[in-house]
Amino acid sequence: MSSLLDVTAIGNAIVDVISPAAPAFLEAEGLAPGSMTLIDEPTAAALYARMAPGLEASGGSAANTVAGVASFGGQAAFIGKVAGDELGAIFAHDIRAIGARFETPSLTGGPATARCLVNVTPDGQRTMSTFLGACVELTPDDVDPALIEGAKIVYLEGYLFDPAAAREAFAKAAGLARASGRKIALSLSDGFVVDRHRGALLGFIETQVDVLFANADEIRALFETDDVEAAQSAIRGRVDIAAITRGAEGSVVLTAEEVFAVPAGPVAHVVDTTGAGDQYAAGFLFGLARGRGLADCGALGSLAAAEVISHYGPRPAEALAGRALAQGLAA
Amino acid sequence: MSSLLDVTAIGNAIVDVISPAAPAFLEAEGLAPGSMTLIDEPTAAALYARMAPGLEASGGSAANTVAGVASFGGQAAFIGKVAGDELGAIFAHDIRAIGARFETPSLTGGPATARCLVNVTPDGQRTMSTFLGACVELTPDDVDPALIEGAKIVYLEGYLFDPAAAREAFAKAAGLARASGRKIALSLSDGFVVDRHRGALLGFIETQVDVLFANADEIRALFETDDVEAAQSAIRGRVDIAAITRGAEGSVVLTAEEVFAVPAGPVAHVVDTTGAGDQYAAGFLFGLARGRGLADCGALGSLAAAEVISHYGPRPAEALAGRALAQGLAA
Repeated sequence: MSSLLDVTAIGNAIVDVISPAAPAFLEAEGLAPGSMTLIDEPTAAALYARMAPGLEASGGSAANTVAGVASFGGQAAFIGKVAGDELGAIFAHDIRAIGARFETPSLTGGPATARCLVNVTPDGQRTMSTFLGACVELTPDDVDPALIEGAKIVYLEGYLFDPAAAREAFAKAAGLARASGRKIALSLSDGFVVDRHRGALLGFIETQVDVLFANADEIRALFETDDVEAAQSAIRGRVDIAAITRGAEGSVVLTAEEVFAVPAGPVAHVVDTTGAGDQYAAGFLFGLARGRGLADCGALGSLAAAEVISHYGPRPAEALAGRALAQGLAA
Repeated sequence: MSSLLDVTAIGNAIVDVISPAAPAFLEAEGLAPGSMTLIDEPTAAALYARMAPGLEASGGSAANTVAGVASFGGQAAFIGKVAGDELGAIFAHDIRAIGARFETPSLTGGPATARCLVNVTPDGQRTMSTFLGACVELTPDDVDPALIEGAKIVYLEGYLFDPAAAREAFAKAAGLARASGRKIALSLSDGFVVDRHRGALLGFIETQVDVLFANADEIRALFETDDVEAAQSAIRGRVDIAAITRGAEGSVVLTAEEVFAVPAGPVAHVVDTTGAGDQYAAGFLFGLARGRGLADCGALGSLAAAEVISHYGPRPAEALAGRALAQGLAA
């Protein structure tokens, strides 16, 4: 084990409420299939009241990634804000129980722990409505410099551009990471997030980001084009490594000099795509932190994504270290 | 639709926390595989801290049965006590969202909503450690006479013999049901519950119960014998109908005159046996309320049990009405 952490991530600390839904339900609720919408507490309560019975599972994009890195046997830490309530206790338990460090103080006297209402249609696609709750109270003070300076890679989720104080925390972490010579990785998170914060995101990417994760929608949104190939060309050279996930088509990993097409992992039956991108990032970052080549990093990402979409819930249900070993991808 | 409810159930209102566990974990924690142990809040917190990451899902034995009856398209109501906390809100949402009535006032100023820590071993067996929390504050005042007098069958779980006030609620419900000519069904719930309350349970069964549900362990415990056949003989005539579940062997339905051997439903892969008995009772009671013969009631029970053990969580993930229709068992 290295004395450094493999990955420290900063993100929204969220508990997912996952319910099956018919496509007509999304239409009746005015929800764009596959999107993530921010909602306030009354809206969340009203939507929840209309949803089917659900399962609750710890979520949050970067937190899911940290859980995945830990599941591979990596050393990982998460920074994010929960409240001192039952959902906060569940979030803290789950991320620690998978072996990650999570030491951010809980919020007292503010909003409740964030929840993401996830409606999963029969094709496995998830549509998310998120009440950010305590997440908006994440501040730069919550960013423990030791966790940033002590990690090979600092991973940030684009969703953090929405809460203002969290965005400052994000900037602090990036500054500390840069000053310590650590790699900075970013996920674009969501096409609407990119639309809301395009200028700021582009500036941040060009000046600070070493590794960028995006899906086709997000990279197209970043460069305001309908042509994913054009968007992929545009990102080359702006970051050291870009990994573009393409759903069932797998992913494309790009550097200034090279392009790797990475196949998706085999999945017998897609149950719930929640967490697919997060787990892809987990495998990729674990590989990168352990010095693997980019093709292997992509393959580790595919492996983790394939596992998570075969069941409900956004985090691995099976130790990824064992899966990687079985597939000859052990670090 | 009948103007009567099919089933009103009284039980502990519990949220399950379901985690995978190795057999060695159960041994280290001193937990008997397959058992249900009552634990206090500090013990629950300590055990939870050592458990793997989990999924949360509404549970409670009789509540699961009510959810199953509703999933078959039955009219059902549940009486049980949650606190005014986040887990209580989840419990209330889920049972209403599946179409059941749930109007018991939430507890204020007392213990938290009950939780059942469920450790599931790779063979699918669940071992439960339950903190009863708000459930112990269920009182006779919570038993709405209209819900008892207005249901064809009143279903009670043996677990209610543990909290003293709940046991009084149980007695009140039985009295009201008897006075209105309603059928009373009881689940023995757990072998250790039977050991703790054998005399009282036997007295109640012989004087009040029309339909008894038990598994092999429970019926053996009731008659203090190792011989399940002897125990099955002993129950005949003491109740109108006894349905004894036998795991993968299916179930045996007994009356004074008849015996039906009911095969288990086909299951490709057993994931989590939590809720198997509860869903068997759901199918059986739905059939009984709709005037089906006992063999059909057993088949409906097998169908519901097979569905629930094929996934994590103690309630149907798929509408049972559709499954029953597909198997020619629609009411």
